[in-house]
Amino acid sequence: MIRRRPALLLALFGTAMPLQAQRSTPTPVVLDAKIATLRDKALADTSAYSIVEGLTTEIGPRPPGGSAAQARAREWSVARLKAMGFRNVRIEPYTLHNVWERGAETGEVVAPYPQPLRLTALGNSGATPANGLTAPVVYFATLNDLLLAPEGSLRGKIAFVSNTMQPTQDGSSYGSQGSARFVGPNVAAKKGAAALVIRSIGTDHGRGPHAGTTNFEAGVTPIPAAALSVADAENLERMVKLGKPVTLRLVLTPRFVGDRQSGNVVAEVPGTDRDAGIVLVGGHLDSWELGTGAIDDASGIAITAAAAKLVMDAGRPRRTIRVVWFGDEETGGYGGQAYAEAHKGERHATASESDFGADRVWRVETNFAGAAKPVGDRLAMALAPLGIVRGTALAGDGTDIGPVIRTGVAGVDLNQSGLRYFDWHHTPEDTLDRIDPAQLQQNVAAWTTMLSIVANAPEEIGPVTPRG
Amino acid sequence: MIRRRPALLLALFGTAMPLQAQRSTPTPVVLDAKIATLRDKALADTSAYSIVEGLTTEIGPRPPGGSAAQARAREWSVARLKAMGFRNVRIEPYTLHNVWERGAETGEVVAPYPQPLRLTALGNSGATPANGLTAPVVYFATLNDLLLAPEGSLRGKIAFVSNTMQPTQDGSSYGSQGSARFVGPNVAAKKGAAALVIRSIGTDHGRGPHAGTTNFEAGVTPIPAAALSVADAENLERMVKLGKPVTLRLVLTPRFVGDRQSGNVVAEVPGTDRDAGIVLVGGHLDSWELGTGAIDDASGIAITAAAAKLVMDAGRPRRTIRVVWFGDEETGGYGGQAYAEAHKGERHATASESDFGADRVWRVETNFAGAAKPVGDRLAMALAPLGIVRGTALAGDGTDIGPVIRTGVAGVDLNQSGLRYFDWHHTPEDTLDRIDPAQLQQNVAAWTTMLSIVANAPEEIGPVTPRG
Repeated sequence: MIRRRPALLLALFGTAMPLQAQRSTPTPVVLDAKIATLRDKALADTSAYSIVEGLTTEIGPRPPGGSAAQARAREWSVARLKAMGFRNVRIEPYTLHNVWERGAETGEVVAPYPQPLRLTALGNSGATPANGLTAPVVYFATLNDLLLAPEGSLRGKIAFVSNTMQPTQDGSSYGSQGSARFVGPNVAAKKGAAALVIRSIGTDHGRGPHAGTTNFEAGVTPIPAAALSVADAENLERMVKLGKPVTLRLVLTPRFVGDRQSGNVVAEVPGTDRDAGIVLVGGHLDSWELGTGAIDDASGIAITAAAAKLVMDAGRPRRTIRVVWFGDEETGGYGGQAYAEAHKGERHATASESDFGADRVWRVETNFAGAAKPVGDRLAMALAPLGIVRGTALAGDGTDIGPVIRTGVAGVDLNQSGLRYFDWHHTPEDTLDRIDPAQLQQNVAAWTTMLSIVANAPEEIGPVTPRG
Repeated sequence: MIRRRPALLLALFGTAMPLQAQRSTPTPVVLDAKIATLRDKALADTSAYSIVEGLTTEIGPRPPGGSAAQARAREWSVARLKAMGFRNVRIEPYTLHNVWERGAETGEVVAPYPQPLRLTALGNSGATPANGLTAPVVYFATLNDLLLAPEGSLRGKIAFVSNTMQPTQDGSSYGSQGSARFVGPNVAAKKGAAALVIRSIGTDHGRGPHAGTTNFEAGVTPIPAAALSVADAENLERMVKLGKPVTLRLVLTPRFVGDRQSGNVVAEVPGTDRDAGIVLVGGHLDSWELGTGAIDDASGIAITAAAAKLVMDAGRPRRTIRVVWFGDEETGGYGGQAYAEAHKGERHATASESDFGADRVWRVETNFAGAAKPVGDRLAMALAPLGIVRGTALAGDGTDIGPVIRTGVAGVDLNQSGLRYFDWHHTPEDTLDRIDPAQLQQNVAAWTTMLSIVANAPEEIGPVTPRG
């Protein structure tokens, strides 16, 4: 708590004064009363749930990689965004190159304890022969243990990297524990492994494997790589620990299918001041195919659009708010890259994305520079009644806004609680049932508050030094 | 609470005296101090967890119907029960007739919202053509609505019976809500439906469908019948409510494969008094194949065997305790029927089974008659410190002990809490991870206490009138 006290003081009294001055003559931040009115209205708004419900019911899974379902989702989105009253609603197409496409994916223990295993191929995984690959398992408790394996020691074998992950509110355990997925297959391939399986990067104990992409270095031939469900990985770990050699059979038949067309969906709330810069918000429309992509990321696109509509309905803002529902985030952020390329001549004031589920926003972080710093103070003040604290790190999180952020655009991050997110992230369980409507509405209130303040800020919001 | 007061008084003061007498000169039940010592020892015993862990890890799913995995499980069980020190450990074989065997099982919405659905065939389901059945859906909110459908109105259509189920501590919602599975397919077949899907009989909101058996009347041709996961059923229900005709494609290829061999596993703690009757306890060794059968029912066989061993190690009991790990419960209680047939000449004092998961025992019920009634009073007194209340219904629950109970053998039911059970019952999620070791040990303590009292009771435990 003590650690946070300076941030609280900043929220209440702004950043302009040194600490001594705050003790003697604090100048509190004062907010327009309309902000609170709009925030409370947003707390009762159900349009975000309606978007998540519609997309997960009428479209369902929206696989990245130029899928027909993602194309249907774009059409659905254009219709919905037009119906909501947005302007300049359009699809901005782009081309994906050398698309990876999921195939069959099954696994089983052949010996000594024959039984099926639930798994899913990692994005960019290589393929087994169509009739499968049967090989002994070499167990590694952590990625570090795999890194320590002698070169060539895995030839003809299936590396199994276990790995535990605990929930964290800020999601930081995904970064630390996710490396088994991000780099494990490449490491195993370089050491000659025939294939690799990991324990899913997840905090659950269920049977739904967690999908996700991995990458191989140039010159490294992709090996078959899959994530076991956490329950299956724990079972396999128990088998290994019984001491007898364990043999697996994997059937993974993904393939690279060449170039495909895809696109982003864009909608706008035109502002009164064309020179003040665009306020960019959004999430991603694609989803892994195991679930219906409710928390990842129908909720993000729903939250940002619902908030933009509430601000639009409250009167034309100073800055144009641009809502982008990005395509193909899951396999590498291709929609975000295409957006940045297509709009590189435009001035953006801020960029923010919602891509961490639908649980409550607990923290706001910004990186405003110079004259724009008071905007951050007002944000923190306005968001505090929603239970949101002010963080101290530099904002700018997000795969899709990353290419824009890296050009020096200010970020505003509204961080959602990650305590449940990795129970369902990229699994079959990512469905509408996981959405808590009250928490979803708190998100809409936070984003509405943020957009109202940022889009109408009289200050100049200038470029910032992007974080390293 | 008022409802329960008479039962509490019975527990504390026995059943022999009328209520007036209890108020003036209560004679408290007094227990041998060894009972509490053994109960406390059992609370710390980890052997039940070890059995569940071993069976789910080394064997995994144990499908009913004469499967190789169930045969391996019998061999594993014989070795484990011998190692625990039981006597007369053996497999008692029996023949299964006209065995139903699961095949392929996939489903999808074809129109207007194409996406996959997760489902599993119900036991005794008919088959679709190998390349699937495509037909429009007719929605029924409840089984009663299906029953009201005009004869012939379902011809060429897929009936979809939704149905909600809330958790109940005593599991009674399975009886009331399960009828959609138990009789729905037969009703739909008689009305000419091409197939039927139900919302899984479960209290979760997950993607794992709940397997289970259904039955068709003689003369009714089985139609393809499957359970959608609760999340998929909720999604399909939303689609139906959007008002456009919904078309499904089902691929279900189960078949009847003729006769198969199977068996029960039997182990004994020989008693000193051969004439006092056998105390029969057990659970079932088979499991549905989607999970690894941890709560259904590795935990039941583990609890009963662990308790019998603790009583055995405390000294030879008066009555023989017979532990039976029944086969093929899931498809119709065939192991229980075979046991009753094979042992019909023997005298059983009591019969009890554990087949409701691994959560804590919350209630004991008995149906002792005549001179044996004080045994029930002592049981209630001894179990109360474990948080167990005395119920007022007649005991004798269980598919496997049913055939023995129906011959007039006294039952002792130790009822587990069902508040979580139907989240995972018959789903892929029934794995070791669902076992709470502390609650499992409370079960062992309850069963140890029960066996110690019943097997050593000096009273004659005679026949009872079975409940209707």
